Amino acid sequence: MVDDAEQKCTGTCATVDQTVDTFEMPGQVTDSQVLRDLATRIRINSVEATSAAKSGHPTSSSSIAEILSVLFFNTMRYKVSAPRDPSSDRLVLSKGHAAPALYAAWVENGLVPAAELRQLRQVGSDLEGHPTPRLAFVDVATGSLGQGLAMADGMAYVGKYVDKVDFRTYCLIGDGESAEGSIWESIAFASHYKLDNLVLIVDVNRLGQTEETMLGHHLDMYKRRLEAFDFNAMVVDGHDVDALIKAFDAAAATKGKPTAIIAKTFKGKDFPGVEDKDNWHGKPLGAQSEKVLAHLNSLLKVKGKLKFTIPPTVTLAPAVSISNIKLTSPPSYKKGDMLATRSAYGTALVKLAKSNPRVMAFDGDMKNSTFSEELMKFNPDEFVECFIAEQNLVGVAVGAACRDRVVAFVSTFAAFLTRAFDQFRMAAISQSNINVCGSHCGVSIGEDGPSQMALEDIAMFRTIPGSTIFYPADVVATERAMELAANTPGITFIRTSRPPTAVIYSNDQTFQIGKANIVLSSTKDQILIIAGGVTIQESMLAANTLLQTGIGARVMDPFTIKPIDKEGIISHAKEVGGRILVVEDHYPEGGIGEAVLAAVAEEKGIQVKLVAIPRVPRSGKTADLLSLYGIDAKGIVEHVKNALKM
Amino acid sequence: MVDDAEQKCTGTCATVDQTVDTFEMPGQVTDSQVLRDLATRIRINSVEATSAAKSGHPTSSSSIAEILSVLFFNTMRYKVSAPRDPSSDRLVLSKGHAAPALYAAWVENGLVPAAELRQLRQVGSDLEGHPTPRLAFVDVATGSLGQGLAMADGMAYVGKYVDKVDFRTYCLIGDGESAEGSIWESIAFASHYKLDNLVLIVDVNRLGQTEETMLGHHLDMYKRRLEAFDFNAMVVDGHDVDALIKAFDAAAATKGKPTAIIAKTFKGKDFPGVEDKDNWHGKPLGAQSEKVLAHLNSLLKVKGKLKFTIPPTVTLAPAVSISNIKLTSPPSYKKGDMLATRSAYGTALVKLAKSNPRVMAFDGDMKNSTFSEELMKFNPDEFVECFIAEQNLVGVAVGAACRDRVVAFVSTFAAFLTRAFDQFRMAAISQSNINVCGSHCGVSIGEDGPSQMALEDIAMFRTIPGSTIFYPADVVATERAMELAANTPGITFIRTSRPPTAVIYSNDQTFQIGKANIVLSSTKDQILIIAGGVTIQESMLAANTLLQTGIGARVMDPFTIKPIDKEGIISHAKEVGGRILVVEDHYPEGGIGEAVLAAVAEEKGIQVKLVAIPRVPRSGKTADLLSLYGIDAKGIVEHVKNALKM
Repeated sequence: MVDDAEQKCTGTCATVDQTVDTFEMPGQVTDSQVLRDLATRIRINSVEATSAAKSGHPTSSSSIAEILSVLFFNTMRYKVSAPRDPSSDRLVLSKGHAAPALYAAWVENGLVPAAELRQLRQVGSDLEGHPTPRLAFVDVATGSLGQGLAMADGMAYVGKYVDKVDFRTYCLIGDGESAEGSIWESIAFASHYKLDNLVLIVDVNRLGQTEETMLGHHLDMYKRRLEAFDFNAMVVDGHDVDALIKAFDAAAATKGKPTAIIAKTFKGKDFPGVEDKDNWHGKPLGAQSEKVLAHLNSLLKVKGKLKFTIPPTVTLAPAVSISNIKLTSPPSYKKGDMLATRSAYGTALVKLAKSNPRVMAFDGDMKNSTFSEELMKFNPDEFVECFIAEQNLVGVAVGAACRDRVVAFVSTFAAFLTRAFDQFRMAAISQSNINVCGSHCGVSIGEDGPSQMALEDIAMFRTIPGSTIFYPADVVATERAMELAANTPGITFIRTSRPPTAVIYSNDQTFQIGKANIVLSSTKDQILIIAGGVTIQESMLAANTLLQTGIGARVMDPFTIKPIDKEGIISHAKEVGGRILVVEDHYPEGGIGEAVLAAVAEEKGIQVKLVAIPRVPRSGKTADLLSLYGIDAKGIVEHVKNALKM
Repeated sequence: MVDDAEQKCTGTCATVDQTVDTFEMPGQVTDSQVLRDLATRIRINSVEATSAAKSGHPTSSSSIAEILSVLFFNTMRYKVSAPRDPSSDRLVLSKGHAAPALYAAWVENGLVPAAELRQLRQVGSDLEGHPTPRLAFVDVATGSLGQGLAMADGMAYVGKYVDKVDFRTYCLIGDGESAEGSIWESIAFASHYKLDNLVLIVDVNRLGQTEETMLGHHLDMYKRRLEAFDFNAMVVDGHDVDALIKAFDAAAATKGKPTAIIAKTFKGKDFPGVEDKDNWHGKPLGAQSEKVLAHLNSLLKVKGKLKFTIPPTVTLAPAVSISNIKLTSPPSYKKGDMLATRSAYGTALVKLAKSNPRVMAFDGDMKNSTFSEELMKFNPDEFVECFIAEQNLVGVAVGAACRDRVVAFVSTFAAFLTRAFDQFRMAAISQSNINVCGSHCGVSIGEDGPSQMALEDIAMFRTIPGSTIFYPADVVATERAMELAANTPGITFIRTSRPPTAVIYSNDQTFQIGKANIVLSSTKDQILIIAGGVTIQESMLAANTLLQTGIGARVMDPFTIKPIDKEGIISHAKEVGGRILVVEDHYPEGGIGEAVLAAVAEEKGIQVKLVAIPRVPRSGKTADLLSLYGIDAKGIVEHVKNALKM
C-alpha cells in the first residue's frame, strides 16, 4: 500500500556530491559531443522507461533532448544536491508529458537513481506520468498545457523585482500548447514587465496529438508573433547543441526584454521509422523499441564517463521567513456599522504586509473593487497588476509563491475566478500555497447582473484538495480570515461581498478554521439556520422577527465552509430538534448547503432544507434580488415556517 | 414579483415595420451627419439611462458610439423586425458592460421603446447590466470579458462553411479585454480558418478599470500583433464615421483572412471633464450629467427625423430543423463484453449525424482519445478541429449553436473542461444548447496521473443552471445518453471513461433523464449502493461477493446525475432500511454523493456514506489506483460492511 495521505515532497532524491568548476561568464562549459551524447542518453532512458511502463510519451521527450542536455549540463546554474535552492536557475517543463526526458536529465546529473526510471508511472514511484512536486526537483506540477509560462513569469518577477537575485528562469513549452490563450497572457505579462531573466523555449516539433499544429514548421510565424509581443525572438535548430548554447548566451546578454528561443525540432528525433511521423503521440515504441534503442546506442560517441560542468549560482537569494504572519493591529470597528467585507480585505492586506514585507497582492485590473489597491498604495513594490487575464494572474501567484519566497494574495471578482479553475486544480497538485480573494459574490452585487455574480465559486473551491474556504460574515471576521489564510498551507479562498453589511462581531472575537459561531440563539430554538455573508445578516433579522411570534431560530455562521464545523453543526442541530435550514447566496449545488449535508450525512434524525439561488438570476437592486430569490429576512421567515413542517 | 422562472427570450421588443432601400453594393447608405447625430443620441441615452439607474458604464458606452452608429445604420444587413433572422449579419458586443450603447442603438432603430431605457438594470426590465438573450436582439450573453470573439468565430464558421450564406459577423471587444488569452485563441482560430466574413473591432479607449491598459494608445502595437496572427489589420479613428465606413467596406472586400479594425477612441468621448480621464470606469456621471447632456445636445445637427437606411440581407439561410434527432440504429453490443464508454461516444455521434447533418463535433486536438474523430472520418465537414484551446473550443460551439443552426457536440478530456468553466457559466446565461463530452474521468485513467484526471467535473457541471449530466455505465447507456443529449435544451454533459468496462445493459434497454436503473438486487438487500461509470462494475462485483456472505446490496445506476432520480433513491433507500453507500471516481465535493445527499436532505431516517477520491491522486495502473482509493470491488465490500454499522 502506498502512503500518499500526506501531500509533501518526498522525492526519490539521492544525496549527491557536486563538484563544479566556476565560470562567471556565460559561454560553453561542457564539450559539444558530451552534450550530444547526453541528449542521446536522455532519449534512450525515455524509450526504455516508457517501454517498461507500457505508456507515456517517448516521442515528445525526444524532441527536447538537446534542449535539456544544454540547459542541464551547460547553461543552467543550479545545485544538484539542493534542487530547491532559492538562488538557482529555474526550469518549468510546461509540456509536462515530456516528463521522461526531465527525469532522465536528473538521472544523468546523479540525483535520481537510474533504476528508479524503470518504475516510471507505477503506483509506488514519484516519477509520475506528468511531473509533480512530489519530486524535489519539480517546483510546479504540469500536464495541463499552457500553464507553465505563467508560473515561470511569477518566478522571474520575484527574482527580478523582489529577491533581486541573478537566477534565470527557463520555461519549455510545446508548439501545440502555444495555442492555449493562457500562454499569450503570460507572454504579454513577461514583456510588459521586461522580464529579461526569463527565457521561453518553444519546442516546435510540428505535430500535436492528432494532427499537425496550426503553424506546423513555420518557425518564422512564431517569430513574428513573439516579436510583435516584444520578445527577443530567435529561431534555432533545436537539435544543434552549439546553436542552443549560443542562443541561451544571447538570451543572457539581452536586457530589457524576455527572450524566446523558437526551436525547430522533430517529434521522435533519432527514432528511425518514427521521427516526424503521425500517430506516435503518447505511445511507447512497442515493437519498434529494440531497433530504436540499437540506433540510439550507435550514436553515442564519447568513451568512458561523460564529463560535464554545471555552473554554480552567482548571487545568493536573501533568507526570508514567511511564517507566523500577524495583523499588526486588531480589527477596529463598531458593532452595527455597515461596511462591505471586501473593504476589510484591503485593510487586512496592509496590516499583514506591515508584519511581513513578503506579503504581496496580485490583481486583475479590479483593484479598486476588490480593495487590493490598499496594498498598492501602502507599497507599490508589494503589488503586481496582472491586467484582465485571470489564468495568468493565478499562475503568476503560484510561481511567485514557489520556494517559499512570497505570501501571495490573488484577487478579482469571484465570478471571474472560474476562468482559472484549471489553474487552481493544478495548483493543488503543485502543492501551492496561495490565498485567493473573490469579491462580488452572489446576487447581492445587484445591478450588474448574472455575468458578474459568483454563484458557483464555493462549489469550485470546495473541490480543490486541501483547500480552506473562508466566508466571513463581517469585516471583523474578514480581517481574521486574512490572518489565518496567510498562515494556512494549501489554497485558501476568501469570499467577500460587495454591499455593506452590519458589523456583528466585537473586535476581540476569536476565529478558528473549522469552528462555527452561533450569532443568535434563544431558549426556544426549534431550528438551526446556517448562512453565510449577506444571508447571516438577513437570518438574524428573520430570527428576531420569528422570536416575536414565539419561534426560536438559532443562527450559525460557519466562518469556514471548508473545513466545515461538523461537530458544531451536528450538536446544535440535535439541540434544536434536528431541523436545519441553510440559506445561501450561491447556486444550490456544491455550496454551503451541500457542505452541511455532507457533514450530517451519516446522522439519523437530521433534516435539512436548502435555500439558494435556483436559476440564472437577473439585474436589479440588491434588496429586490434578495427578495426575488427568497433569501432576505422576509423570505427566510417563510422558509423557517415551511421547514418546521418537515 | 418578477417571473423569471422560465429562461426564454421575452425581449422587450416592439414589432416594427421596416422600410429599407436595397443596396447590393457595399458603400455609404446613410448620411455622415446623421450617423454622427445617431452616435450622439446613443451617448445621450447611455448617460440618461445610467444616471437613472445610478449605476452602469456610460464612459465605456461613449467610446463605441460611432462604431455602433455606423454598424447599425449603415453597414450591417439585418431586419429590425426579426433580430434572430438566420440570414442577417451578427454583432457580438464582447465588451458587454457597454450595454447601454447597444440598447440605445436598438432604441434608435425602433425595436426598443425609448421609455424602456429608463428601466435599465431594474429587476422588472430585460435591459440588464450586461446583455443577455432575454433580449431578442442578443444572441449570447457577455460581461465576462474575452469570450465574445470565440462565439463570433463559431457564428462566422457556420456562415462560411455550413450555411454558406453571405451574412457577416462583427465582434466588438475592448482593449483591456484583449489581455484575455481567450481572445488570442479566437484570433488564431479565425485566421486558421480564414474567416473573411468576420470583423473584429478593437475599441482602444486606452483605459482599463483601474489604470491604463498595457498598450495604452499604441495602436501600432495592436496592428503588429494582429498582423502577426494573419489578420488584415487597420487602424482607424474610431470617432470618425467616414473612416469607419471605409474600414468596414475594406473588410468586406478582403478575401481569405479576417479583418481587425483597431479603433482609436476615447473613454467618455464628448463628455467634457470626463473624457480620457482616470477613475470614470463603471460610474454614472452623477453631478456631471447635466453639463454633459447639455454639451451632447448641442452637438446634434440634423433637424427633424433622422433618415437612415439599413441594408437588407443578401442571401437566404437555408431552413433547417435540429429537433427530433435519433440514433439511426440501436446500440449493438454483447452483454459482458469489455468496451470503453468513450468509444460509444464516437459511434453514437456518427449515428446522430446520419439522422441529421446539422450534428457537428468540435474537439481540442484529442479526437483520437475522445473518439470524436469518428465523425470526422464519416464527414469531415461536420467536424471542427479547434486545437489545444479549450476556452475557444467551447465558445465556438456556443456561437455555432446560435439561432438553432447546429447541434454542437464538444469533446476533450474532462479535466481540461475546467479550463472553460467561465465559458460554461456564461453559456447558461446565454441560454445555449451545447452538448459536452468529457472523456478520461477519474483515477481510472491510470498512469497519466492527476493532471489528466477529471475529479471535479461533475461538481462543475452541476453548478450550471439547467444542465443535464449523463454518466453512462456502459456503451449502451452512452449511445442513449447521446441521443437524449442531442434533443435536450440547455447544456448537457456526458462523462465518459478511458478503460473498458463491461456491457451491462441489453441493447433494447430504455433510458430516461432523471430515472435511475437498478442493475443488481436481491431479496436480502440491506443497503443501496449508488455508483457511476467504472464504480458500477466494481459495485456489481462487490454485491455478488457480499451476497455469498449473506449480505444483500442493491446497486443503482443513476444514469443522470443531474437531474438525479430523487424519488427512486428515496424509495429504494427506504426499501433496504435507509442505508445508502455512494461510491464515485470523483472528489467528495459536489459529485454524485452530494447530489444524492441533496435528494434525501429533507428525509428522516436515511443515512448516507460517501466514498470518493479523498486527495490528489497519483500515477499508477487503473486497478492499483481503484484499490488504493478503495473504490474497487474489494474496497466496496469493506465500505458496505462499515456502512452497515452506521
